[in-house]
This record gives sequence, structure tokens and C-alpha cells, in this order.
Amino acid sequence: MSNRRYVSQLGHNEQVQQVFLASDKQLRPNRSGNLYLQLELSDRSGSIATRMWNANESDYKAFENGDYVVVGGATQLFQGNMQLIANSIRKARPDEVDEADFLTLQTEDIDKMARRLAEVLRGITNPALSALAECFLVDEEFMGKFTRAPAGMKNHHAYQGGLLDHVLSLCELALLVAPRYKDLDQDKLLIGAFLHDSAKVDELAYERDISYTDEGQMLGHMVMAMKMIDDKVKEAERLTGDPIDAALVMEIKHLVISHHGEYAYGSAKLPMTLEAVALNLLDNLDAKMASFSQLINDCPNSESNWTQYYPNLDRKLWKGVREE
Amino acid sequence: MSNRRYVSQLGHNEQVQQVFLASDKQLRPNRSGNLYLQLELSDRSGSIATRMWNANESDYKAFENGDYVVVGGATQLFQGNMQLIANSIRKARPDEVDEADFLTLQTEDIDKMARRLAEVLRGITNPALSALAECFLVDEEFMGKFTRAPAGMKNHHAYQGGLLDHVLSLCELALLVAPRYKDLDQDKLLIGAFLHDSAKVDELAYERDISYTDEGQMLGHMVMAMKMIDDKVKEAERLTGDPIDAALVMEIKHLVISHHGEYAYGSAKLPMTLEAVALNLLDNLDAKMASFSQLINDCPNSESNWTQYYPNLDRKLWKGVREE
Amino acid sequence: MSNRRYVSQLGHNEQVQQVFLASDKQLRPNRSGNLYLQLELSDRSGSIATRMWNANESDYKAFENGDYVVVGGATQLFQGNMQLIANSIRKARPDEVDEADFLTLQTEDIDKMARRLAEVLRGITNPALSALAECFLVDEEFMGKFTRAPAGMKNHHAYQGGLLDHVLSLCELALLVAPRYKDLDQDKLLIGAFLHDSAKVDELAYERDISYTDEGQMLGHMVMAMKMIDDKVKEAERLTGDPIDAALVMEIKHLVISHHGEYAYGSAKLPMTLEAVALNLLDNLDAKMASFSQLINDCPNSESNWTQYYPNLDRKLWKGVREE
Amino acid sequence: MSNRRYVSQLGHNEQVQQVFLASDKQLRPNRSGNLYLQLELSDRSGSIATRMWNANESDYKAFENGDYVVVGGATQLFQGNMQLIANSIRKARPDEVDEADFLTLQTEDIDKMARRLAEVLRGITNPALSALAECFLVDEEFMGKFTRAPAGMKNHHAYQGGLLDHVLSLCELALLVAPRYKDLDQDKLLIGAFLHDSAKVDELAYERDISYTDEGQMLGHMVMAMKMIDDKVKEAERLTGDPIDAALVMEIKHLVISHHGEYAYGSAKLPMTLEAVALNLLDNLDAKMASFSQLINDCPNSESNWTQYYPNLDRKLWKGVREE
Amino acid sequence: MSNRRYVSQLGHNEQVQQVFLASDKQLRPNRSGNLYLQLELSDRSGSIATRMWNANESDYKAFENGDYVVVGGATQLFQGNMQLIANSIRKARPDEVDEADFLTLQTEDIDKMARRLAEVLRGITNPALSALAECFLVDEEFMGKFTRAPAGMKNHHAYQGGLLDHVLSLCELALLVAPRYKDLDQDKLLIGAFLHDSAKVDELAYERDISYTDEGQMLGHMVMAMKMIDDKVKEAERLTGDPIDAALVMEIKHLVISHHGEYAYGSAKLPMTLEAVALNLLDNLDAKMASFSQLINDCPNSESNWTQYYPNLDRKLWKGVREE
Amino acid sequence: MSNRRYVSQLGHNEQVQQVFLASDKQLRPNRSGNLYLQLELSDRSGSIATRMWNANESDYKAFENGDYVVVGGATQLFQGNMQLIANSIRKARPDEVDEADFLTLQTEDIDKMARRLAEVLRGITNPALSALAECFLVDEEFMGKFTRAPAGMKNHHAYQGGLLDHVLSLCELALLVAPRYKDLDQDKLLIGAFLHDSAKVDELAYERDISYTDEGQMLGHMVMAMKMIDDKVKEAERLTGDPIDAALVMEIKHLVISHHGEYAYGSAKLPMTLEAVALNLLDNLDAKMASFSQLINDCPNSESNWTQYYPNLDRKLWKGVREE
Repeated sequence: MSNRRYVSQLGHNEQVQQVFLASDKQLRPNRSGNLYLQLELSDRSGSIATRMWNANESDYKAFENGDYVVVGGATQLFQGNMQLIANSIRKARPDEVDEADFLTLQTEDIDKMARRLAEVLRGITNPALSALAECFLVDEEFMGKFTRAPAGMKNHHAYQGGLLDHVLSLCELALLVAPRYKDLDQDKLLIGAFLHDSAKVDELAYERDISYTDEGQMLGHMVMAMKMIDDKVKEAERLTGDPIDAALVMEIKHLVISHHGEYAYGSAKLPMTLEAVALNLLDNLDAKMASFSQLINDCPNSESNWTQYYPNLDRKLWKGVREE
Repeated sequence: MSNRRYVSQLGHNEQVQQVFLASDKQLRPNRSGNLYLQLELSDRSGSIATRMWNANESDYKAFENGDYVVVGGATQLFQGNMQLIANSIRKARPDEVDEADFLTLQTEDIDKMARRLAEVLRGITNPALSALAECFLVDEEFMGKFTRAPAGMKNHHAYQGGLLDHVLSLCELALLVAPRYKDLDQDKLLIGAFLHDSAKVDELAYERDISYTDEGQMLGHMVMAMKMIDDKVKEAERLTGDPIDAALVMEIKHLVISHHGEYAYGSAKLPMTLEAVALNLLDNLDAKMASFSQLINDCPNSESNWTQYYPNLDRKLWKGVREE
Repeated sequence: MSNRRYVSQLGHNEQVQQVFLASDKQLRPNRSGNLYLQLELSDRSGSIATRMWNANESDYKAFENGDYVVVGGATQLFQGNMQLIANSIRKARPDEVDEADFLTLQTEDIDKMARRLAEVLRGITNPALSALAECFLVDEEFMGKFTRAPAGMKNHHAYQGGLLDHVLSLCELALLVAPRYKDLDQDKLLIGAFLHDSAKVDELAYERDISYTDEGQMLGHMVMAMKMIDDKVKEAERLTGDPIDAALVMEIKHLVISHHGEYAYGSAKLPMTLEAVALNLLDNLDAKMASFSQLINDCPNSESNWTQYYPNLDRKLWKGVREE
Repeated sequence: MSNRRYVSQLGHNEQVQQVFLASDKQLRPNRSGNLYLQLELSDRSGSIATRMWNANESDYKAFENGDYVVVGGATQLFQGNMQLIANSIRKARPDEVDEADFLTLQTEDIDKMARRLAEVLRGITNPALSALAECFLVDEEFMGKFTRAPAGMKNHHAYQGGLLDHVLSLCELALLVAPRYKDLDQDKLLIGAFLHDSAKVDELAYERDISYTDEGQMLGHMVMAMKMIDDKVKEAERLTGDPIDAALVMEIKHLVISHHGEYAYGSAKLPMTLEAVALNLLDNLDAKMASFSQLINDCPNSESNWTQYYPNLDRKLWKGVREE
Repeated sequence: MSNRRYVSQLGHNEQVQQVFLASDKQLRPNRSGNLYLQLELSDRSGSIATRMWNANESDYKAFENGDYVVVGGATQLFQGNMQLIANSIRKARPDEVDEADFLTLQTEDIDKMARRLAEVLRGITNPALSALAECFLVDEEFMGKFTRAPAGMKNHHAYQGGLLDHVLSLCELALLVAPRYKDLDQDKLLIGAFLHDSAKVDELAYERDISYTDEGQMLGHMVMAMKMIDDKVKEAERLTGDPIDAALVMEIKHLVISHHGEYAYGSAKLPMTLEAVALNLLDNLDAKMASFSQLINDCPNSESNWTQYYPNLDRKLWKGVREE
Repeated sequence: MSNRRYVSQLGHNEQVQQVFLASDKQLRPNRSGNLYLQLELSDRSGSIATRMWNANESDYKAFENGDYVVVGGATQLFQGNMQLIANSIRKARPDEVDEADFLTLQTEDIDKMARRLAEVLRGITNPALSALAECFLVDEEFMGKFTRAPAGMKNHHAYQGGLLDHVLSLCELALLVAPRYKDLDQDKLLIGAFLHDSAKVDELAYERDISYTDEGQMLGHMVMAMKMIDDKVKEAERLTGDPIDAALVMEIKHLVISHHGEYAYGSAKLPMTLEAVALNLLDNLDAKMASFSQLINDCPNSESNWTQYYPNLDRKLWKGVREE
């Protein structure tokens, strides 16, 4: 990897001259009527608010959101947050960019996770579920998106490859936990873990920034997954020549549409099978472990034993007694 | 129609000898250990709890739930409800049964409503939506079920043909209300009114009794409708040779999955378009007018200005000052 | 109408020299300690935040909130909102002001709506309700306020004449919908539509700005309406010489106090009559159609298919696919 | 007082021959088809479910609900509740009835409380509030109802005179608590305590049984009180020749309509003045002390330290360690 | 084990003559005034409602609740539930009773689980937590109760040894899941799993029947655990001579008092550490797997794919397509 | 007291040169990159936001948060709030500071309150409760903290001595109210009033600023109080030689853990005794009277009859008609 200073490493008053990913650029007047350029600069470690004073329209037009840019300037602590005061911003040449600096997960990590996921799913013994999983695994377009998509806009696994990361983690939990409960069907739990968020590949747009697609906003990934499953079921039936039992398809769909666990979180139905109950709780566990770890680890305030208060969680998180 | 005494007409101490539809039969011991037969008897006007004392297993096996039976006995007011004490129950011969006595809606009513619905939908001017509606209208299996299905288990329009009755009523409301709001698209509102509950044809089982199907219980009609729409969209595209705009399909699906209006009622999404908001409120209006009217009209207590208290509504309903 | 540039038409960097309505003026120091004047300027199309740099106390005292002022300056896009940087502000002479520029509804619109409302209410056939409606219609002070009042502080119909606009719209809906439900009493629904928000004439202060009156804040229009109804009932009884049936008065009051539909929205009672249920839902429909249309139409961001996220609605609204 | 056995004193297997108040009578068939008479018998100490086996229609018609009847029979513990198996029931002669046996509060108690209430209210020093209170106190019809009415259907103070009992208790609390908070206006708090439930005189019907009136059900006592206050304010103004300050009337009305404290309990507004907050909490305190004391004292199960579970309270109450 | 017919094996119309555990006995009159004895009979497989007609007081006094009794009679299906009509009931002689018939868990099962729990806890490497766990493990009185207590009144693990069963299961989950999350402290999670319900040993009374103790009802096991932890912390400190870090004790207490996860379930605090979040979700998972499995497996209705509707779960559970 | 200008007395454009308590200091760059110092200055009457332009790091390091500083500068009204523009800030010499200027309550006030509290508690007649109270009263460390602690972070009694102030006020209410309810035990209510918030002495840190301690955040004062009570119960038992009845200790603990009244407010249990219900409501009354009075009295806007809107209260408060 390059010898850059990652965003998360930047301290107060550092001189910077390196490549960033640009987004959210705006040209705005200050209170004296002078224009300045405001934007976000990011790499795989995080993002930093940036201002370039005394900018003009040609500065504004010199690059697009989503471009890699070379930025010179200095950092400054402002109202408790680090910001960057830029002196120069220009579009980067391809040879100046190391893509690995901008991906939370490296290609080899993703490949390794994808291989492990395939291995886990190929361990499914129920023939119909096995065939169904296979139809997804061999769909290159789907898997291409599945391995690039994030698991969310923010909160947890919000990075390229985050969906795969989360789904694999959930499958590993399923492998560990299922054998402990004799009435729990491991194959159903695995296929549920694999498909529960699968329509996030189309619910979110994530080529560079992460945002909701129109369909994602209007239907949501749980409803969108219905069509994906219907299509793949037909494909699996064509492939094997055997119809998949309608009740089994129904259970798989139920796993998907009930996995948020409560109506208040957009679940169209409450979990009504053992596997649906387990999927909801294990999904919740994996998501919360990831997001709470991140909130604790990323907390910039080294003087408190607590993170800030998070309104959506209605609590602060305990970081532990700081060493002095 | 026959000269029978309908269930809703039966008073205290009436002698009865006529055909009913049987359901919920049970053979039970009383506290002295003697067996008696308990069942529900119904016709199109309602149902009445029935007991035959000193019954035995051959009485129990003489007919099935869902059979038409000839019953002799007498009515009795018990704990404020009318019940029937039967002396004899036997399976009816086909020539003794007038099916019209058991249908809330007559065949001609249903035909008339079906014709009017087709007329309304054929007034849709958007070519894609028109083609889509047509694909449903010409699907004889679908329309056969659509015209027989109830709109619910209880609460409102819970009778054969009730779904058609409710949907047509909603379409008529749409025709009246849409022109008053210039930004509201009448065609979208109509297709939404037509399809919002369409999967109730498979969510409910209603050949004689009404109950949920397994899929209805586990996925619900809003999610089940996704596949019906996907299939018919493909059909319409094949028919016309023109692809239907993806955003339009998305809006139709949104109309369906958001029509319960709030997460707490199993809506996967909140209504986000003018048509979705209007559909939710007009659906609510038509359902409440039907159910509240029925509760008021069916209230058996002629001595109070109020119906009983309904826990699911958290209120009594006002029937008006009774005349003395 | 005048050839002014309406607020809603102003783009970035436009020179302006015309009359506005002033409100919310403040004289404030900037961070260097220099004073500037901050105020809102509006016309019937909307309002714009305005600043005049290097102002002094005589600038501040040169006009009052609620005055028409002539303003010279230029527009500027700041943080996604248009603002006006003023060079000069002075009180306007009466001959410079065209009142029509400052009213959402023109006098002739209001007159027409008022006539139509009277016509609708004079179609009521129940003699007691007809007499009651008449007593309101001939009360010039009441009708004067009723035709000027807004229907709300914000959200929907928040402009002079908005109450009349909303009430008439609701009455027209009542005329369309009532005949479809045989147990629904059209006359009661109409009087409910007319009176449900009538105390907003005193709940809100709206001579120029819109705000709550003390009584509006402390009692609310539903409770305040009780006295208005009591007074007019007495008047109607005096007029006709016939007492109005106490149960009918009770039903009218119930229509008013239950029309928010749920306790959480300040309804003292849940709707217990068919008319009360219908009024709640039709009121909701008319309010939502107006407010959602306005949010969609006023959305300044032409680059998204969606409005911004509205916390009080817990959603974004779909504007449709923008044309490119 | 008479030497009767009060209902609360009746144990298992007691012979009874005395006067009761009859209500809820029904003639019903048992499972063998024989008729029996079921009714409630009560005196001031409580009520007891009663059955007379092998009854007929002339037994049923021999008295009306609300009549005093002489009953002979024996008590029996059935499913944890005492019941009375009657052998004979006949209407009582006036000379057999001692009204005092049927009133929770004796006439002298009520008179004493009414005098004390007048004394407290005549201590109000604000002239307008004093005049207003006086107008209620001298209204004989109002005070007649006010001293006879219960404070509720059940829960607390559900007996004739219960309203007066509760209101006086609340006024005494106000006298004790108000001096402790210098910003709290004792006169306003007192008038609020006096009037907060005043419309219960018409919300409830309580000549013998307690039930809601139509108006009580449909508008509720908080809304109904508005008219009572308006009428008495006019009267007080006529009496004194001085207009009462509109803001003061508004505050009094606010005290009444906000005294349930939360929207969920039918409060049209939340308490916005110190007096309204105090009234809500003191009312709550007095009601809960009365109802919880009664639940604990009336608990028939002497073998447990706990009362039964009360679903509306979501808890059992602690009675204390029983002595052995 | 004995060749008895277990309660769960009893079908309609079986002759029975064997030992049961008696509870809830009552002597009650039927509607004809004859007395009968009503009681619950149970063994380790479940319980059955029992009636003995024409009983008298000496029958009632022949045994106590909690006694083993020999019962002769026959089973009967009544209102969908099996009941037993007894002809004879007498106290059993010790030699007639095989205790193993009345324990869900056998002594050897419990011993095995207790040994495994000790093994798991002795694997804790943090010296302070290890010492603390040891102090509980060597407390014979505590462990005696801990291995006999149920985990709840009903819902899940409601049998003697159920607490140990649940806690061990949770510890095993912790051992599997903890290594997957690098920021999660396995030792803390284990001690939390061990102690989270530990005060249930005193919250519940479970010598034969299960019920709440007074302290359990009034304080709850989460609050009661505080004292147990304080006492054992002191003991561990005495034992090792080292004070336990106050922040560590605080985290352990936090694990206990927050493990219900939400205020609505009586959690005094929301989980604020990774371990507390994981404990809440894994506890939930283990409890739900146990209770849902039991509801599905115990469902007596073999004719439906669904269990009955459970109001506290707001759903039916799917049992799977029954084979025909 | 000194002749200083208290913060609450400062108007626009006043010259200031006096001692304040400093907190929340930050050195920040403005938009031109120049550094300024921002801090809060307070005395017993309130606090004021302060800025010193063109500051540097030695200004920043010249004093610590919590120090008394001498500040020279001038006030300015900015965005509706008073702020102070400082020219000079230096650490104060001890002889320049009058501690009384920084305490809401004077030492003599606190002493007087502490004496009255002891007097009230020594009036308890139940020997066990009397001994228990005494053990707290003679614990100098505890009483030292108890008389210095605030009752909260904000909302009510948020000043040194505020806990004592609130607890004494509650005890006085208990003395007034308890005699009115014959089943209410005054001694239990008094001990509950004394101890309900007692662990706030350790839940909050309040030597100069007020904040939560780690334990306060993680366990809360209700749970923390359990240990304090356990310890003092042991002490009282040692002292008197008599064991305190376990049920009595349980009731005292219940008073503490249930005093927030609802699960949503962190109550682990709902109040189940008369004393617990009364404590919850009286605590609520005393806290609301104090906080609402303060909000009304401190409201800086003299032009409105209303305070601002408080989101946590979901309302504005009425200040009364302002005099003109």
C-alpha cells in the first residue's frame, strides 16, 4: 500500500499533498460575499470536510464529484471536527491513483470471502435449496454486484463489499449456532442468511457514493427480493427438471420479508418459523457488533470513557477506562 | 327466492325445519358426561350457534363441515344471543337446496359489478396501464377467483363477491375524487384501486368457509401481489410489443405495498406518491363505511342507542336515538 | 397583475428593485462586531431571507414588520437556498403597492368560493341544520374572518383564504361521496365539513403573519368551536322558534371534537358515527392532497426524482422521473 | 343503622332473608333447557351475583331493575367468588327499606362535605373567581346533582356522592400544597379542582345504576364543561356587573380540558400552566390513593400477600405480609 | 423409567390408574348444587385438568397440593382439551412414586450440565472474573438452588433445572460466537451469561409449583442480583487478597441490569457495551428457540399446519405441511 | 454579598470587569483562519457564552476549566442570546473570589435545610426505619455529598444543594399529604422520599460542573441505591441489635426502584404499594413545579405571553398576559 496519510490518521495542523476521492462539491459565498469551494474528501479510512477560500467558478468546474483529485493544504480542528483548508485542487492522473487506498476491502479479501461463501452454500444438502443457491452463485452479474455492494447507507457495513462481508459473517454464525437447536433447519437458515439482503444489490447505488435507488426507496430490498427469488426458482427448476416445493419457496420468501423482525422496522410479517426467528436475531447481532465496534473504535474524543450520545440508539457507548 | 326464514329473521322460540350450511361441528361431553353436538348453521344473512343434545357419533358423522343440511328444531335466546336447539340434522338432497339462499350477492349482482369494473378499467387512457388492466380482465381463472373472493376474514366485505364489491366501490370513488386534484393521476389511482387487494384471491381460501391460505398467512396479499404484477407486466409487454416503463411498474407495486398506510398495519413502505396517499385513505374510507354500517345495522340490542363496545375499535358506535 | 418578479421566480444573481412585505426584522452584529439587518421579504408566491450589510439603527427603525417596503439588491444562492442581499430598504408608498401581489387568493376567487359555499350549505334539507348553517352564513363578522383565515400555520392551506378553500373542497367531496353510502347522512356530513375547523378564525391570528392566538394555543379550535356552536344554536332556535333536537346538536359537536380521528392528534373522542368517520378521512385526504402537492411542486432541487426527507412525514416524496 | 348482613360481610353458606337493590336481571335457559333467573343484588357495601333456579316468566316480571327486593336464600363460594342461590324474590314494601343501607355516604356525610366545599371556595380571594364559584354554589339544581353524582363508572369514587368526595379531597390537597410553591396561584388551582370533573353531573347517569349518558359518551365531561363554564361566567358578569378577564376564563377552561395530562387519556391539550400541571398530578394522586386502597382492602383472597393481577394497571398490588 | 402413561401420551377415552403430582385442588358446587373436586394432575411431560364428580369434604382433605396421589379414572376430550374424570384419588405411598417421572431433567442430566458449566467458567482467564465465578461455584447453597430453579414461570425453560439448562446453553453460544468478534471480550460475555438470571434462584419459588416470591415480584431478578454480586465480589477480594477493579464490577452489573434490552421489558438501562448487546441478543435467541420449539412440538391440533394464535406473540407459528 | 453584576442581570452593551467561573474553553480558527477563544462564564445566576477574538495558545493555557477568572469585556445581543466579547481573561487570585457569588444556595441555607431534614426524619416512629434513617444522617461522608449534590444534570434542581432542596421539599409534602390517606404509611413515605434519589450523590459528579459518573451512566441511581441501602441496613442492625424485617427492606428498595413510575422512564418495576404510588406522583409534582417555574421565570423573551417551545415537553408554557 501507498505511504499516504489516511484521513483517519490526520491530526491538527498537518500539511497534506495527496490524492482523495471528491464528493458534495459546492461553490458558496461567505458573509462578505466572497466565494469559496466546499467539498468532502475521502479515502477508505473515512472522509474530511474541506474548504478552499477565494475559489472561483473555474475551480468549481475543474473536477466532478466522484473524481480522484490531488489536494494540497493543511488540517485544522474546527468545532471538534478535523477539517482541511485546501490551497490547490486538481484532477488526478490515473497513474497517481492507487485504487486500494479507496477500498475498505481489498480485492483479495473480497475474493477470499466470495470463495468461502460459495463453499458454505455448496454444503447445503437439501437438493432444492442447493440448486437454488447454485443459480445465484453462477449468475455472474448478480455475484458481481453482490460482492461490490455495501450492506447499508450508514450504520453498519457501509462500504463496497460490506454486503458480502455481512452475509458471510451471518452464514458462519448460522453454521455455529444451528447445530445447537435440533428443530432448527440449518439449510433453510443458510439460504435465508444468503438471500435476506440480496436485493440490496439493486436497492442501493454504490458505484462511488452510496445512495438509494428509486426502486430501493419505493419498494425496499425485502419486497424487491421477491422477484429475484421467483426468477431463480424458475431457473433452478429448469436446471434440475424438478419443481421446488411451493411451501419451501414460501418459507424462503418468508425468511426474507420477516427478517426485520417487527412491523415498526418495515417487516411485512412477523417471523413465524424457527429459522425466521433465528435469522432476525443473528442478523441483528452481526449488524450491531459491526456498527457498535465501529462507533467505539472511530470515536475521536480520547478524553472520555464514553462515545458521544447517538440519538438513534438513545444512548452513549462505553469505550472503557482510558489509560492515563 | 325461497320462502325460508333467514337466520337474521329468527326470533325467540321459533320452530325451524329448513336447509342450512353447516360448519365447526364438534361432539362434546356435557358436565354429566352425556355427549352433545355443537355446530354453526348459516345462510346468506348470518349464522347461528346450534346444539343438539344427546347426540352420538353417528350423528356427528352424518355430514361434513361445508355440507348443506336439513335441520329441525327451535330457537332460544341464550345470554343475549339467539341459538338453535336442534332435534334432527341430516344431509340435504341437491333438490332441496337453493344456492341463492347462501350467497350474499346474487349471480346477477356479481355479473353486473364485473361488467362495470371492466368498463371503468377500459376507460384508462395510459396505454401501458390499459394493457396491463386488460391482461388481468381477460385472465378467466383470475377473474373467476376475483369475482368469488371475499375482501377479508371479517371486519368488512367478508362474503363471496366482497372483494369485487369493495374494489368496484373504490374505483367509483376514484372516478369521483381524482378530477378534484389536478396533480393526481386518475389512471394510476384506478389501477391501484383494482390491484391493491388482488392477491386476496390467493391469500384467502373461500370456497365455503373463509380462512387464510398458508401463503396468505406467511407472506400476505401485499407481498403476494408482486408476482402477479410481474407476470402480467410480462404478458402485457408480449401482447403490445412495447416494454412498460420500469418506473411505472415500480409505482404500481408501490401503490400495492404501501396501501395499508402505516408500518404498524404491515405496510412495508409509507405512501410516497399522491396516488398512494389517496388510495390508502379512500380504501380506508370504503372499508370503514362498510364495516361500521354493518356493525350498526346488525346490532341486536334494540334497547340502547349504542352498539356494544368493540375492543379492536376501542369504542362503541352511535346508532341514533331509538324511537319509542 | 403587475410585471414584478415573484419570489418563486427569482434565480441566482438577479437584480431586484420592487415592493415586498417585510417581517421578522432583526439588527445583529456579525463576528467582526459590525451590524447588519436581517429580515424576511415575501409576496404571494413565497418568502426569501434577506440581509443588508452595514446597517444601523435608523435602517432598523425605518419600517415595521408587516409594512410594504421597496427593496433594491441582488439575489444569491447560499447553502442551497436563495437569499437576497439588499442595498436599500424603504417603506413603500400606497400607490406603489398592488395588494393582489400579496394574496395567494384573489378577492374574486374568494368571493366565488364564498358564494359556492353558501349555495352548497343552502342545499341542506334538514330544517334545523339548514337554519344553523344560515345563522353562520349571515353573521358578517364571522364570514369576514372565515373567508380571510388560513387553515393552518404551515403544512396545508397556510394562506389567507386557505380555510375557505379547504372547507369548500371538503364540502364538494362530501357531495360526491355521501350518495355512495346509503347510511351516511349528507346533511350532517356537510355541516360537519363546514364547522369542523370553524374556530380556526379565532385559533389563528392572520392579519399579516400567521400565528396562534393565546386561546388557540391553550384550548385549540376543536374546543373553541363548542361555544360558537352553542351560540349559533340559540340564535337558530330564536330565529325559527323551534328547538333543535339535543341529540342532533350533540352529533354536530361530536363531528367537530372527533375530527382529528385519534387521541394522539388531540381528538378528545374517537369518531363514533358514520359521518364522523367519513369527515375524519375526507378531511385527511383533502389536507394531504394539498400539502403533498405543494411539497412536490415547490421542491427546489431539480436534480433528484425525490423531495428532501420530511421528518414529520418520516419519508421523502416521489416527484417522478425528471426529464433530461 | 339496620342489623342486616351487608354484602361485604357474607361468608360461605349463610342463610339470608333481607332487602337488596336488584339490577341486571335476566331469564336464561340452562343446558338442560330449564329456565333460571340471574341478577345482581347490592347494598352500599358491594354487590353479589345471584341465581334462582327453576324460575319462570312471572318471577322475572315480579320486579324491575332498580327495585328494592326481599330475597331469601343461601350463599355459596363459586369459582372464588361468593354467590347467592335465591329461593324467593319479591318486591319490598317501602317500610321494609332503610335507604341508608344503600348509600355509601350518608346524607349527613354529604351535607358536611358540601358545607366544607362551600367554605373552601368562599375563601377564594380573586373577586372574579370568587363570583364564578358562587354562581355554581347557589345553583341548586347543579349542586343537587353535584352532591349525588359519582366520580366514575368504576375505578375510583364510583358511588353516589363520590364526585363531591373526590373534589373536596382535591381542594384540601390544593390548600395544603399550593402555599409551598410561590408561583402557583392557589385560587386558580382551587377553581380548577372544583370544576375539573363538574360536567360529570351530566356525563354520567346515576339515579340508581351508574352509566354514561349519550352526551357523556360522545363528548366527554371535559368538553361538556365548556358550556357550563360559559353560562356561569355570563351569570357572574351579570351579578357583579364586571366582565371577567378573557385570559382568566381561558385559563380556567384550560385547567379543565388538560387535566387528564396526556393526549392518550383524551386530553385535548397538554397542561401549559403551573396550576394545570399541579391539578393533573394531584387529581391523579387522589384518584389512585382511593382506587388502590379499595382494591387492597376489598381483595377477597386472604391467603396471598398480593391482590390479583389487574390488566388495566399491568400489575398486582402488595397487601403486606399476612399474619399467621 | 416406569411403564406409566405420561400425561402428554394420554388420548381420548383412556383408562388410567397411576401416580400423579396434585395441585390447585378446589371443592366446588356445580349448578345443581352438588359438590365436585377440581384439580391439576401432572408429571414431567405436562399437566391435565381433572374433575371428580360427587366429591365431599373428606375427599378434598385426603391430600395436599404438592402431594403425589394415585388416581383412577378415564380421559375425555372436552372443548379441545384433554381432561381426566377421576373415580378415586388417594395419597400415594413413597414406594409407589418414581421421582424420575416428575422431573423434566433427570438428576444425571443436571449433574452433567452443572459439571460442564463449571468447566466452561473455569476456562475464564481474567483472574478477577475467574475468582468471582469460583465464589459462586463453590457456594453450595447457591448452586443447589441454581441447579433446581426454572428459568421462568412459563414461556421458556419453565421446569426444575431450566435455569441451568438455559444458562449453560447461553454459555455454549458465547463460546461459539465470541471468537468471531475481535472487540468482544469472551470472559465478560461468559460471566454475564452465567449471572444474568442468577437471582432467579430467589425471584421464583419452585419447590414443587413455580411462582414468584414476594421479593421477585417487587424487585425482580435484575435488581436482586446486585446484592448477590456485591457479596460475591467481597468474598472474591477476601479470597484473592486483590481488589476487583470497580469499573469491571460496574460492567458486570451493567450486563445484568441491561440484559432485557429495552425499557419496556424492565431494563433499567439500555445495553451500552458490546458484551451487553451480545448478551441481550443471544439470551433472546436461546429463549425464543426453546419456547417456539416447545409451542410447535406441543401443539395438539394435528389437522392444521399452524399452531393456534398466541396473543403475547401476536402470531401463529408455522409447523410445516402435515403429511397425509 | 458582593456588588457584582450577576449574569442574569447583564443587558446589551454593558462593560464588565469581574470574576466568573470558566468552563468549556476551546481555541478555534474562524473562517479567515484567525484563532479565537470560546468559553462559558458563569456565576450562581446563570451562564453566558463568551468569545475572545485574536486569542492564542498562551491565552488558552492561562487557566483551566473550573478555574475562577477575572474577565474584562462587553456584552452584546447575538441571535437573541446575550454573549460576552472579552478583551482580557486571567486566573483570579483567591482574595478576589467570593464563593457565595457562585452558589445558588448559601451555606446557611443548606445548613438550615439539612437541620430541618434531620428533624423530619427523626420524627419517624417506626424503630427500624428510624434507625436506618439515623445511620444515613450520622454518616458524615454521605451527608457531605448529599448536601452538595444537585438533583439532576438539568431540568430541575440542577445546582449544588439541589438534591437536598428537592428531598426536603418532598418530605414536607409527605408530611402534609400522608395524614389525608388512612392506608398510607407516613414513615415509609418519608424514608422513600429521603432515599429515592440518594444515590445521585454518586451518580453525578458535581464538584464544579455537573456530569454523570461512569457508574451513574451505566447503572443509574436507582440501581446504585441498592448497595447503599444494603450497607446501611446492616449498620442499623448492628447498631440496634435487632434485625430489620426483610419485607420492610424489600418495600424500601421497591420505593426506590419504582419511583420513576413507568418502564419508559427506566423504572425496573411499576409502583405496587400505596407509598410507591404516592412517592412517584409527589416526586413528579415537586420536580415539575421547580422546573416549570424556572422555565417561566428565566424566559428571556419579554414580548410574548409564552415561553419558547420545549421539544422534551412537547409544549410551550404560558407566562401570563404581559403588562404593557
